[in-house]
Amino acid sequence: MKDTALLLIDVQQAFLDPSWGPRNNPGAEANLLRLLEAFRATGRPVIHVKHDSTEPDSTLRPERPGNALMLGMEPIGDEPLYGKTVNSAFIGTGLEAHLRERGIEALVIGGFITNHCVSTTARMAGNLGFRATVVADACATFDFRDAEGVIPAATMHRIGLAELRGEFAEVLDTGEVLGRL
Amino acid sequence: MKDTALLLIDVQQAFLDPSWGPRNNPGAEANLLRLLEAFRATGRPVIHVKHDSTEPDSTLRPERPGNALMLGMEPIGDEPLYGKTVNSAFIGTGLEAHLRERGIEALVIGGFITNHCVSTTARMAGNLGFRATVVADACATFDFRDAEGVIPAATMHRIGLAELRGEFAEVLDTGEVLGRL
Repeated sequence: MKDTALLLIDVQQAFLDPSWGPRNNPGAEANLLRLLEAFRATGRPVIHVKHDSTEPDSTLRPERPGNALMLGMEPIGDEPLYGKTVNSAFIGTGLEAHLRERGIEALVIGGFITNHCVSTTARMAGNLGFRATVVADACATFDFRDAEGVIPAATMHRIGLAELRGEFAEVLDTGEVLGRL
Repeated sequence: MKDTALLLIDVQQAFLDPSWGPRNNPGAEANLLRLLEAFRATGRPVIHVKHDSTEPDSTLRPERPGNALMLGMEPIGDEPLYGKTVNSAFIGTGLEAHLRERGIEALVIGGFITNHCVSTTARMAGNLGFRATVVADACATFDFRDAEGVIPAATMHRIGLAELRGEFAEVLDTGEVLGRL
């Protein structure tokens, strides 16, 4: 994993708001911090992405406190922070050019939420030719609801990762990633 | 739905091969034909996409019979057919330019498989600013397997659509789409 960057997706305070409802993986933040520390300690690149929502009522709007990154997850030094307005971190940002210019060919991806911005970014990463790894226990999602009823966050998470595994990305846990650094 | 095109994803004979395992929505092909006939009958654009796999063993490789479109689903007249090598119909193809040049702002999407190429294309369509509609009963998927066991096709399909609904696309059935044409 020498040419690998850590790509942190939407690790923002808005996702701590109870309005999102029940969540899985309460340990995701601790695992994101472990990954962040390990990538920095081994001199690997870290890239931050945040969601600058344009939805009128979103707690992720740039002028709202929920837009801020979670404590301890802020960029340091020359780590870039890309703001995006859609789910994919590759659309409307300079992320792909940044990676190509630096010869970064592999990405370890964690953050929020598994089924939307993490999945969409991992799908595009894989389809654009990057080797993508999604860190299962460093992502989280929330209960969804459809016409049939509530779909628990744990089910959303499991199936969100099953869709990615082997097709777009490798799916590992934090400990497995740290063991390869 | 005046400015709406029908986008058919990977309606290819390979997906009839039993090697894929159990599938949901046996009526998907009939619904795809209903959509195709209705879009043609009302003079709306139809765009075909097929998967030209580069995987050594894939039945979707261009030189294999499974690469062919299903019977009755072939392009006619000036309907374009885009070949792609990844899941998203927007990556490595002229699809986005085709849509922008013609002022097509909305897409009705159906085909195979819900969780991979349909979902990824719908996600990118929504993120690129197109109004996307995914036709639930004109898509299908297969059983998946992960470390916990088998995930039935119907569950994969339900959750694949729950991820898209309201975030990337509207999710409707064929009858609802036909009622709006």
